[in-house]
Amino acid sequence: MRAPIDASHPTCQLRDVLDRVGDKWSVLVMNLLADGPKRYSELQRRIDGISQRMLTLTLRSLERDGFVDRTVTPTSPPRVDYALTGVGATLSDHVAALIAWADAHRDYVADSRLRYDARPSE
Amino acid sequence: MRAPIDASHPTCQLRDVLDRVGDKWSVLVMNLLADGPKRYSELQRRIDGISQRMLTLTLRSLERDGFVDRTVTPTSPPRVDYALTGVGATLSDHVAALIAWADAHRDYVADSRLRYDARPSE
Repeated sequence: MRAPIDASHPTCQLRDVLDRVGDKWSVLVMNLLADGPKRYSELQRRIDGISQRMLTLTLRSLERDGFVDRTVTPTSPPRVDYALTGVGATLSDHVAALIAWADAHRDYVADSRLRYDARPSE
Repeated sequence: MRAPIDASHPTCQLRDVLDRVGDKWSVLVMNLLADGPKRYSELQRRIDGISQRMLTLTLRSLERDGFVDRTVTPTSPPRVDYALTGVGATLSDHVAALIAWADAHRDYVADSRLRYDARPSE
């Protein structure tokens, strides 16, 4: 079930994914889109502190990786909607699971560190 | 089901987890221990290219966070075994899932980037 890994295993793609998972704005955008497609203006309104430039860059990068679809409706003014792709949704699920894990085990890790650091040194 | 996240959400604990998940040696050690407890010497033998210093530091850090248990059997010479804790095993499962995801979608992301970059610029 578990693929063998050694230090020669190409971890580049994992690192790529971690860069994405570790990017706050990408995580916030994917989290919002996990509830359904959103317009650019709604994303901007719902993500505190994101600049227009940063939101545009984040969406472009997610679209480039194939995690987000951008749909332009030629109204006047044009309406632009963003949605997770199928693959983007699976990544978003992993990210949500990791966030939940980190949240659930925050106290455990903090307590464990305190106990470890309080040990008499060997 | 999905907890709301905004930019004020404390992402420190997620970042902590990502630092761990993003550390090659930690990932390799956890992956080996996922199959069962191992002795120090076995870990060293099975992880290509890890120095004794780096393996020791990695194991101490995993133990400090409460992901790995260290058991010393007072034989001569003493025998030291390492095992995932229950919490360590749940993190290891997430890591294995992310590695599998990254591996399964490597080509998808590469193709998506090629297509995106080949588009006429707007």
